[in-house]
Amino acid sequence: MTSTAARPGTTTDGPPEDLALDLRFWAAANYLTAAQIYLLDNPLLREPLRREHIKPRLLGHWGTSPGLTMIYTLLNRLIRRTGAETLLVTGPGHGGPAVLAGAYLDGTYSEVRPEIGRDLAGLTRLVREFSTPGGVSSHAGIHIPGSIHEGGELGYALVHAAGAVFDDPDLLAVCVVGDGEAETGPLAGSWRLPAFLNPRRDGAVLPILHLNGYKISGPTILGRTSDEDVCAYLRSQGWDPVVVAGDDPEPVFRALDAALTHAHATIRELQAGARDGDGGPAHAWPAIVLRTPKGWTGPQEVDGVPVEGTFRSHQVPLAGVRDDPAHLAQLSRWLLSYRPQECFTDDGRLVPDLAALVPDGDLRISASTRAGGPRFRVRPLPLPPLEDYAIDVPGPGVVRHETTRPLGELLRDVLLRTGRPDGGGDFRLFSPDETNSNRLGAVFEVTDRCWQLPVLPGDDSLGPDGRVMEVLSEHLCEGWLEGYTLTGRHGLFATYEAFAMVSASMIVQHAKWLQTARNHPGRTPVPSLNVLLTSTTWRNDHNGFSHQGPGLIDTVAPLAPDVTRIWFPPDANSTLVVAEQCLRSRGQLNLIVVDKQRHLQYLDLEAARTLVSGGGCVWEWAGTEDPDRSRADLPDVVLAAAGDVPTLEVLAAAQLLRQYVPHLRLRVVDVVDLMGLLPPGEHPAAFTESRFHDLFTDTADVVFAFHGHPRAIHPLLHGRPDVDRFHVRGFTEHGTTTTPFDMVVLNRMSRYDLVLEALRRSRRVPEGGDRLARLCREQLARHRAYVVEALEDLPDVRDWTWSVS
Amino acid sequence: MTSTAARPGTTTDGPPEDLALDLRFWAAANYLTAAQIYLLDNPLLREPLRREHIKPRLLGHWGTSPGLTMIYTLLNRLIRRTGAETLLVTGPGHGGPAVLAGAYLDGTYSEVRPEIGRDLAGLTRLVREFSTPGGVSSHAGIHIPGSIHEGGELGYALVHAAGAVFDDPDLLAVCVVGDGEAETGPLAGSWRLPAFLNPRRDGAVLPILHLNGYKISGPTILGRTSDEDVCAYLRSQGWDPVVVAGDDPEPVFRALDAALTHAHATIRELQAGARDGDGGPAHAWPAIVLRTPKGWTGPQEVDGVPVEGTFRSHQVPLAGVRDDPAHLAQLSRWLLSYRPQECFTDDGRLVPDLAALVPDGDLRISASTRAGGPRFRVRPLPLPPLEDYAIDVPGPGVVRHETTRPLGELLRDVLLRTGRPDGGGDFRLFSPDETNSNRLGAVFEVTDRCWQLPVLPGDDSLGPDGRVMEVLSEHLCEGWLEGYTLTGRHGLFATYEAFAMVSASMIVQHAKWLQTARNHPGRTPVPSLNVLLTSTTWRNDHNGFSHQGPGLIDTVAPLAPDVTRIWFPPDANSTLVVAEQCLRSRGQLNLIVVDKQRHLQYLDLEAARTLVSGGGCVWEWAGTEDPDRSRADLPDVVLAAAGDVPTLEVLAAAQLLRQYVPHLRLRVVDVVDLMGLLPPGEHPAAFTESRFHDLFTDTADVVFAFHGHPRAIHPLLHGRPDVDRFHVRGFTEHGTTTTPFDMVVLNRMSRYDLVLEALRRSRRVPEGGDRLARLCREQLARHRAYVVEALEDLPDVRDWTWSVS
Repeated sequence: MTSTAARPGTTTDGPPEDLALDLRFWAAANYLTAAQIYLLDNPLLREPLRREHIKPRLLGHWGTSPGLTMIYTLLNRLIRRTGAETLLVTGPGHGGPAVLAGAYLDGTYSEVRPEIGRDLAGLTRLVREFSTPGGVSSHAGIHIPGSIHEGGELGYALVHAAGAVFDDPDLLAVCVVGDGEAETGPLAGSWRLPAFLNPRRDGAVLPILHLNGYKISGPTILGRTSDEDVCAYLRSQGWDPVVVAGDDPEPVFRALDAALTHAHATIRELQAGARDGDGGPAHAWPAIVLRTPKGWTGPQEVDGVPVEGTFRSHQVPLAGVRDDPAHLAQLSRWLLSYRPQECFTDDGRLVPDLAALVPDGDLRISASTRAGGPRFRVRPLPLPPLEDYAIDVPGPGVVRHETTRPLGELLRDVLLRTGRPDGGGDFRLFSPDETNSNRLGAVFEVTDRCWQLPVLPGDDSLGPDGRVMEVLSEHLCEGWLEGYTLTGRHGLFATYEAFAMVSASMIVQHAKWLQTARNHPGRTPVPSLNVLLTSTTWRNDHNGFSHQGPGLIDTVAPLAPDVTRIWFPPDANSTLVVAEQCLRSRGQLNLIVVDKQRHLQYLDLEAARTLVSGGGCVWEWAGTEDPDRSRADLPDVVLAAAGDVPTLEVLAAAQLLRQYVPHLRLRVVDVVDLMGLLPPGEHPAAFTESRFHDLFTDTADVVFAFHGHPRAIHPLLHGRPDVDRFHVRGFTEHGTTTTPFDMVVLNRMSRYDLVLEALRRSRRVPEGGDRLARLCREQLARHRAYVVEALEDLPDVRDWTWSVS
Repeated sequence: MTSTAARPGTTTDGPPEDLALDLRFWAAANYLTAAQIYLLDNPLLREPLRREHIKPRLLGHWGTSPGLTMIYTLLNRLIRRTGAETLLVTGPGHGGPAVLAGAYLDGTYSEVRPEIGRDLAGLTRLVREFSTPGGVSSHAGIHIPGSIHEGGELGYALVHAAGAVFDDPDLLAVCVVGDGEAETGPLAGSWRLPAFLNPRRDGAVLPILHLNGYKISGPTILGRTSDEDVCAYLRSQGWDPVVVAGDDPEPVFRALDAALTHAHATIRELQAGARDGDGGPAHAWPAIVLRTPKGWTGPQEVDGVPVEGTFRSHQVPLAGVRDDPAHLAQLSRWLLSYRPQECFTDDGRLVPDLAALVPDGDLRISASTRAGGPRFRVRPLPLPPLEDYAIDVPGPGVVRHETTRPLGELLRDVLLRTGRPDGGGDFRLFSPDETNSNRLGAVFEVTDRCWQLPVLPGDDSLGPDGRVMEVLSEHLCEGWLEGYTLTGRHGLFATYEAFAMVSASMIVQHAKWLQTARNHPGRTPVPSLNVLLTSTTWRNDHNGFSHQGPGLIDTVAPLAPDVTRIWFPPDANSTLVVAEQCLRSRGQLNLIVVDKQRHLQYLDLEAARTLVSGGGCVWEWAGTEDPDRSRADLPDVVLAAAGDVPTLEVLAAAQLLRQYVPHLRLRVVDVVDLMGLLPPGEHPAAFTESRFHDLFTDTADVVFAFHGHPRAIHPLLHGRPDVDRFHVRGFTEHGTTTTPFDMVVLNRMSRYDLVLEALRRSRRVPEGGDRLARLCREQLARHRAYVVEALEDLPDVRDWTWSVS
């Protein structure tokens, strides 16, 4: 491989002394990277390398690291030259030691972790901690200042970088995409960013597609694809790539420096054009394709087998160093090849001419103010008073409303209040093409769907300045929102409940990030990740079984309790209250599950606030207990609900019970904060013992209608008194295209099923119970016959929609 | 929009009478599509359309349908002309009525559903059933013969088509990709198929990228991208696209016919070249970019607003038909524009000249032998006897072995036995670049990693004929395997446990397909989807928290019990037995969770068979009970495990208890089939009441060490006697880079934690208990101090790895 720059003429050779310094800085970073992987002690090799200086367990990923350190080195130069506010997103997550080397050389790591000072003791601890029990992981994780992206699970580098630059016009996010990661679907889909990135009000993403040719044991697709095809692939998606390739450091450094300089200048030009005036036609965004050998500058051969430039340098290129003196000697030669004695002083400080290469203050990559640096601030959302959006509910169950529509109006005004003259703002809505369908369409009164491609006559609410991000990719929506909130801004991801599973793994990884970030030095809590699951399982009766699935609840519930909340507002006003709480919260993962269709409404704003602040409520008006109830007067049975459709069925069941069995002591409970069910100590939102008792008693049987899989309730309850008494109905994976009411019958959660279960479980059944049970069985039989006969004869078409009372 | 074919000269005009016939066939299919969406009765409009003929709830997706019917019509012609064995995969899932119209016109639908005959009564039922309670859904689901792909959740059309053609050299899978679906990550990633598709031994996928420009309410990215860029995008990934575009049916039909003919000829040429000899350099595969108006031939305008060619025709283009006489009249005009009276006889049969356009027998698209048609067969896997692979286990816990390595040897011989001279076979292994890392590397003794791009010196086990599919995309691996098994072949998807969540939604959707397919007429059970989760949570101590997550268990457990099985073999021989059972099974989703690293081994093959066939076992050798125990002699406490690491910790805890508290009546239970815990009636694998009692008693406290999230056990147990007595330890989302033993300590599942819990829960604690409890607490304190001190001082490096006992 020889060094080339795809665009001859753009290579602006800097002074040779700059190049020499950069190569030495690179050597220092590579040295620290390898030292982290191998060394326990003797971090500068001031004494001959001995067995006991070597870690007993060698972990880490060398292969990608020298490319990352080169990028870091030349970004430092770019920043010093241009003052560009730069965020580095490194997709090759295992390249952590390389990025950490950069952050240590920047000085920020010692600022965040004073015990890892810029001296010999600090260096010793730096290398020792890496991939060590009690130390730091091998990823570009939370411990590395300046990072908003851990890697590990691959695919999300480019969406995180994109989310970071939305509405941040001064930011340059340099995003390194490895050729392994480039094979993932989410990454492949995220190259479409230019269709959504507005040069006027957004910052820029500069992707560096780093092709070192190999994954852990095989080649990569792009690594074996011609420059021509790789460039055509990027060009066709709105990028203007330049190739930098080679294995000889000097020309590669020159070419990459030129490519970065050119890219930065092009970006500024493009942005200036857009910001000065009309901006003219859409431009392609610069991108860099970087081909360098895997494990560059590492051992060329080990035991006669080629290592540098092959998959064999993916992880630890030289193994068994403790037990093989030849390997130990080779490691020593390799490490010394970086001339650490010329990079660091005897007391372990970076030598002054290299230290001078680091940008100043907040401009240091690892001090980025966007990633939790000293000037990182989260501006609270200017939320308007909910009173302006609450719907009038004269009494429970007398009006119907599309439950999410008032939320859309609230979001409209949040968009309005957060808007900037340049079209930017610090709130966005993300959705896979469903904003209108989800009844949040009021937002289009004040903004558009964001779109940088041509707009045609007849298009609805579409334009370059839109702050509603619609793309048919849950991965992009979720990832963009993650990047957006990780850099301190606010948003909501609204999506179909069933298809929220598409990005479930991203949510899991984000929860891990939020969990680890809590109480981490140098990390300010970021706005919560708010996911609205609407178009729910129960009301996808028209779309069929593929659209029916509450799986994300099962995914989120077991994650870190400090982070996760799952909300089931039963109606429109409680949805507003929950949304307000979620939008105000920090560092949480909020799942809000509520359907968009017309539903009966139960609560005025005050009642909704009572419900949400308590996490759950006894609804006296729906039961038959004496409001001044005492312990001596326990209910015979409790009907409980979590979710809008379950609430409807529970209330209908309660109505039947009140009517037919008036002497039954019935309690109705509505639960909105699912985590309240967990025992105290297991979750910050857990109901106290006495509150749990006030809701469910300690002994009465509880018939619980739940939005999700019924068995999902039992793990939460374990540890509460006598959990066998909870009898849960929910979605048992019986779905099809049918009526909404048939959905609850199919899954045995209908009002009639709930009544029958309540009568079966009730401590006593007063008069009327038998008659009501008979009636319910008849109704269920009639319904089944009706569905069967629907195909033959349709006596009353009104029954096709859901008759409530 | 005018009609064009991107390659002038390739358009081979057929006889004009063919075109006229095709257009009439298309009209018939479009008519039936619209009729399904709108009509309850009067299916051929033999009498004037009245209100009561209209469905009360209008559902369905018209927008994509006319494109699909056109493709169906012209594929019929291609098949009749060439005899190509064709599978149609329609990504736009909601285009179900269009595909169903085709299957009905083919006659296969009436063969599978005799009650829907090819007469007026059959037509009435056909239209009435669509999106009707008790009827069929709006997707190209299981009810449509010839379909292996439902759509609904978008993104997987191309991977399913690819999986279908692997190792099936005669098959042509025509795959329609909508421009909405094309925005998803999984679909974007799956364009890389040419890097994996071998023209010598595989069939061909012909993608038709159908750009109608709009999603539900906005434009699509590719819809607004120039032909040049769309083609460059495809060309750069190994396709050779031709554009067919227009809104005038005649030229579009001519151009698409020509494009299909040309694509088919090119494919055959390319395959013949590869099959005759060396095949020469890799060729690009044909692809078609089809631009036609959304809702083509539907209402142009409704109430003065443009509909045809806009997002407004995405679903039902003409609403309120029952209540708006003008809309009713417009619907009538629209439907009659297809001249149904010229397509169907008075008694509802397709007129002979159109019926003659349908290919013969199995060549009909909807009769594909690959998709459950009459000649669909599943060849059982020729599994060699396990005795040849079982490792020698002289006694429990005396040897160590990499648990998955014997499985690799078994898979090697399965690959050998299923191989064909042309390099094909009917078994493949799928993995995101981890086959070696997962210790399944023995397969490379007999096959390669599949790779159609250049192979370089130094590459390891890489070649075009490989049957190990490695690509760094869980979506591709999972989707390819789904397509492969849905067409009757066998395979295994091996992946990191944490990152299996990436394709969790695909697994959910596949489980729904398998569940619905059970007992569906015309559907033979297909081989199970086998997923091996190795590189598990507990043994990703070296990779850190991002690699630690047992979430897929939570996702799969609540799915349909008829379909799902989750296996936790504790060692190598039980892994072999489980794998054999999974590879033999049909129609299941098998999750096998077992780590790849060196673990203690417990069971010889016979003992492993006993364990697996029972789903769980009491291990008398590990407890202290009298083997001839009676009810009167219940254990004081039960220690149970599911999973390899939990088993190790339980056995170590049992050892401590036996040693220090010899008079404790201790029982040790190992559970391998997690679904056995569910109460009888809830799962076919549920332990009977007496078996459950034999394992766990009805009253003794059980300390249960579980591989996954601990609370995942409680929902399974609910309904068993006195579930409060189960005390589960498992992964509580405490992870980092550390030692394996620290992982179990962090999550409170270590042997010491289990002993303490057992002593706490035991009905009685004989002498020695206090001393042991003290010892355990000391050990835990010592361990914590050790981890903290690891960074300061490392007295004994052997402790870095896991010292077992």
